Amino acid sequence: MRYELYYWPTIQGRGEFVRLALEEAGADYVDVARRPGQRGVPAMTKLLAGKRVAHPPYAPPFLKAGKFVIAQTANVLLFLGPRLKLAPRDEAGRLWAHQLQLTISDLVVEIHDTHHPVSGWLYFEEQRPAAHRRTKDFWRYRVPKYLGYFERVLKSNGGQYSVGRRLSYVDLSLFQIVEGLRYAFPKRMKRFEKKIPELVALHDRVAKRPRIKAYLASERRIAFSQWGIYRYFKELDV
Amino acid sequence: MRYELYYWPTIQGRGEFVRLALEEAGADYVDVARRPGQRGVPAMTKLLAGKRVAHPPYAPPFLKAGKFVIAQTANVLLFLGPRLKLAPRDEAGRLWAHQLQLTISDLVVEIHDTHHPVSGWLYFEEQRPAAHRRTKDFWRYRVPKYLGYFERVLKSNGGQYSVGRRLSYVDLSLFQIVEGLRYAFPKRMKRFEKKIPELVALHDRVAKRPRIKAYLASERRIAFSQWGIYRYFKELDV
Repeated sequence: MRYELYYWPTIQGRGEFVRLALEEAGADYVDVARRPGQRGVPAMTKLLAGKRVAHPPYAPPFLKAGKFVIAQTANVLLFLGPRLKLAPRDEAGRLWAHQLQLTISDLVVEIHDTHHPVSGWLYFEEQRPAAHRRTKDFWRYRVPKYLGYFERVLKSNGGQYSVGRRLSYVDLSLFQIVEGLRYAFPKRMKRFEKKIPELVALHDRVAKRPRIKAYLASERRIAFSQWGIYRYFKELDV
Repeated sequence: MRYELYYWPTIQGRGEFVRLALEEAGADYVDVARRPGQRGVPAMTKLLAGKRVAHPPYAPPFLKAGKFVIAQTANVLLFLGPRLKLAPRDEAGRLWAHQLQLTISDLVVEIHDTHHPVSGWLYFEEQRPAAHRRTKDFWRYRVPKYLGYFERVLKSNGGQYSVGRRLSYVDLSLFQIVEGLRYAFPKRMKRFEKKIPELVALHDRVAKRPRIKAYLASERRIAFSQWGIYRYFKELDV
């Protein structure tokens, strides 16, 4: 099965959670909009227009897998999980992994909104005081609650993996959360990491997995930038 | 099977999407925190603390069903859908219904953020200019995109139901979206409804279904208020 991933070609964004799963599994996939030539993004927007698609996506990322066209990051991972051996096969385990992934999705929205709380149609510079306030509350209330929760989940599962007895897409996504928060908030994250030793250790183990390590060093891994979920603003990282 | 729903007892909130599904199905369920007496909320927070729960929820709503404890609204509906005959049974149909529900979840966050864009730890009155700007962009860009998408999905499926050939939890949730936007933004919604005739007709059909009609007229349906996702601020409804 050759998977086709459709996502914006210049950012990690939400697509990265899917890319990490495909890479770890050594899956046969094409990152459609990143193919050489300029035809990837038009192919994506054509599918989004949805005239000839039974189940049109609302937004990228989405995955084509044979006759399936599946959107919503967590839903794509729900589909891929058992197929890539990156999630439990039984219903209880699949729902639990998915539940954690949906909580990661919620966190991702909140991370993004630290730099764009008021509107995505305004520049950061036009919503600076709001971004400062949002960021303050994010680090005071939300990060401790979210990361404290995942730390607890990891710990109560023995520390090695967040779900079951082997690596899952949830672990890969938690790696990306730690990695992204380090990029966007290096100082704040450095201080906070003392409180989440299990998550940091998980991050480090994931980074060392042969396929992930090769992926991160490759050109397939898009660099962090000022256009994704995670953006670095010195003034927000006090 | 007696289901136990755990959610805040005084708001519709995200729990309402689950309540509507349980009610339409005529399911045997207890809305735990709304039982007479004061022991419901402590029972909920005890489960959230998660000391003796294999799969602790991050936040309400969550559902107990036998040995399952399932959180995240869309995940609860993914679980309940086939059991309550409110979703297709085949994988493609289940994933499609879930994908639409996840898009509804995204919309719900954006609806909430119209009145609290900067921070949930500030009163509306402390973030008024940001709320005005957010609401303006929400109605200019986001409502047309989201509701236009659902209108198109409904239409391309024949108009009667959003998924397959019978009622699903997605239809019930879309009812709740229309109902809530009418409460929070009566003037704006009245104007906008001309652009989404299929969604409005779906809303009206759902409202007339015998079990939903009885539920909406009962004390089990909590009234809209100033504490949920949908809040009415006259100044935002121009």
